[in-house]
Amino acid sequence: MKDFYKTTIAPYAEQINEYFDSPDFYRLFSELNGEYLVQNYYNEFLLSLKGGKCIRAYLVNLFYRIALNSNSKKGLTLNENGATLQDLLIASAAFEVFEAAVLMHDDIIDRSDTRRSISSCHIRLGGGHVGLSRAICLGDAGILTATAMLDGLKFSPEALKKVQSFLKKIFLTTISGELADVDLSTQKNPSLSDILQMYTQKTAHYTMIGPCVTGAILAQASDDFLSDLSQAASNLGIAFQIKDDLMGIFSRQQTTGKSSLSDISEGKKTILTAYFDKLATNEQKKQFYSFYGKADVTEQQADLLRHMLELCGAKEQAEQKMNKLFILSKNIFDGIIANSKEKQELWDFCQYLNNRIK
Amino acid sequence: MKDFYKTTIAPYAEQINEYFDSPDFYRLFSELNGEYLVQNYYNEFLLSLKGGKCIRAYLVNLFYRIALNSNSKKGLTLNENGATLQDLLIASAAFEVFEAAVLMHDDIIDRSDTRRSISSCHIRLGGGHVGLSRAICLGDAGILTATAMLDGLKFSPEALKKVQSFLKKIFLTTISGELADVDLSTQKNPSLSDILQMYTQKTAHYTMIGPCVTGAILAQASDDFLSDLSQAASNLGIAFQIKDDLMGIFSRQQTTGKSSLSDISEGKKTILTAYFDKLATNEQKKQFYSFYGKADVTEQQADLLRHMLELCGAKEQAEQKMNKLFILSKNIFDGIIANSKEKQELWDFCQYLNNRIK
Repeated sequence: MKDFYKTTIAPYAEQINEYFDSPDFYRLFSELNGEYLVQNYYNEFLLSLKGGKCIRAYLVNLFYRIALNSNSKKGLTLNENGATLQDLLIASAAFEVFEAAVLMHDDIIDRSDTRRSISSCHIRLGGGHVGLSRAICLGDAGILTATAMLDGLKFSPEALKKVQSFLKKIFLTTISGELADVDLSTQKNPSLSDILQMYTQKTAHYTMIGPCVTGAILAQASDDFLSDLSQAASNLGIAFQIKDDLMGIFSRQQTTGKSSLSDISEGKKTILTAYFDKLATNEQKKQFYSFYGKADVTEQQADLLRHMLELCGAKEQAEQKMNKLFILSKNIFDGIIANSKEKQELWDFCQYLNNRIK
Repeated sequence: MKDFYKTTIAPYAEQINEYFDSPDFYRLFSELNGEYLVQNYYNEFLLSLKGGKCIRAYLVNLFYRIALNSNSKKGLTLNENGATLQDLLIASAAFEVFEAAVLMHDDIIDRSDTRRSISSCHIRLGGGHVGLSRAICLGDAGILTATAMLDGLKFSPEALKKVQSFLKKIFLTTISGELADVDLSTQKNPSLSDILQMYTQKTAHYTMIGPCVTGAILAQASDDFLSDLSQAASNLGIAFQIKDDLMGIFSRQQTTGKSSLSDISEGKKTILTAYFDKLATNEQKKQFYSFYGKADVTEQQADLLRHMLELCGAKEQAEQKMNKLFILSKNIFDGIIANSKEKQELWDFCQYLNNRIK
């Protein structure tokens, strides 16, 4: 199980990265984008595309295969409308392009100077106001490029039209979630429901609902299937985010690759702090928030905070909520997906999400 | 002639603004965007949409009518595929939505605190890093909303598909031009050809080529017509930008509504400075650049700079270039557009662009 990423996702991620390095992607990018940007910023854009885990692209591919096995049009194959594996690869790569672009803006907003072990885009592009200006533009270009990447792929025309319209809504919902995140960061004690609404819009839509439903639409799944799938993916996406929050506080730096103190020092508002706000006494809150959000918090102070989150039951409630969401999502998947090799792969994927340590 | 805007463009601008105020636009916006953004930022978005001159939207409408009269499919009417005047209005309004969105990012990049006589979006949304973060997100949402506004309009399916793909390229070229503009502002003496390339990408594409060609595609104009039209519109767009540059230096504040010193105090790199760099002596350049770009430049110093631009011939060369582009563009228009009421309207429009004082 611990090798699920390596055996199953990584080979697809490699294909995606090979595509980004290919003349095919350069051609697509330069047909869409303006001459100046292509000449001067294509390599920078490529750099931002590299090093992602490609989970979203993988999910497009997995749910294309699942929907082919589960929908009413049995016997449908990838090539019915002339679409090749390359078309599916490009459709799934669009999520990686969107992600890279949105992260350029996200890193400006979060003032993050590193991303995927290299400098963030606005830092690489010169830092300061000029770097920020360039990264705003390059992010804009990436967002539009992602929406245009599916134009002309050889899926059924109805499926393609549906997926193009769906993708824009997913991207727009993600941005709405990003805006909610900006606003929550300015609030002292955002409520649990505000945080869950933000998780649904920001993480669930673009990490799970978007890729899963995109794969299924391209395989011409029925509307009923898509609706159930969307619900299951939403639960899975929120569970994924809670796992991230737990790791952000309780994992060690050597496993996550990012500082185990960064969520604490930036005072990130998560489901853990929302539960803490509900469960802790005023005295405990006073102590907790004297360190949570402190830029120069020490490892010892962080340990005290971790201990407090455990003691008042916030950690346990977050874990329970996460596990409940995993089960809810698996129950829905179970009802709509026929037994198959792909179904087993999905179970393995869910377990991978639950057990991952980074 | 001086009333051309009032008699011909303003009534259409009014219709566009009525549309933005209507429940129809709210419905379209809220179907596309995430719940949180709609609930909390719709009114802010509307505020950014208001007060534009709607020249781009007007051009979509004008060139739809021109292409109907000039293309080979004589007798084609607006309703052939069920499209109504409302469909045409929405297609043209997409340019205003894109403009408002891009200006949110542009105002961050240019550090402009006012826009259309009210505070810029990032200032209204709180200023500082939070206001900037919100305006990045709201701009992203606007850019994507603009690309989605044409989905489902009742033009011929081929025309609609063509226009959707065309629009994305226009928007992407505009962003490429914006990036070129950022880079030029960091250069000491950008060349004339660099400046003209930036004008072509940034201004000509989204002010002229985009709207004119969009109108013509929707009226199912031939590819030959579109190609010539694109060339004519490009020339017109660059002429329009040169006019803007001339006004930016030589117009008085009371007529343009913006400080007659702002281009000078920010040291804007324009075709005027490029000609100046070519024509002036080193001694003149030294004197010129001791004031050009000075934040607290006085009216008297500005007058000296204006005088120097005239004296060395930079102003005259810019005017000649502009007039040449107007003529080039009119010659192409003349060859592809049949005599009609609309052709006269186009001549009046060109004259309006040439004579405008703001």
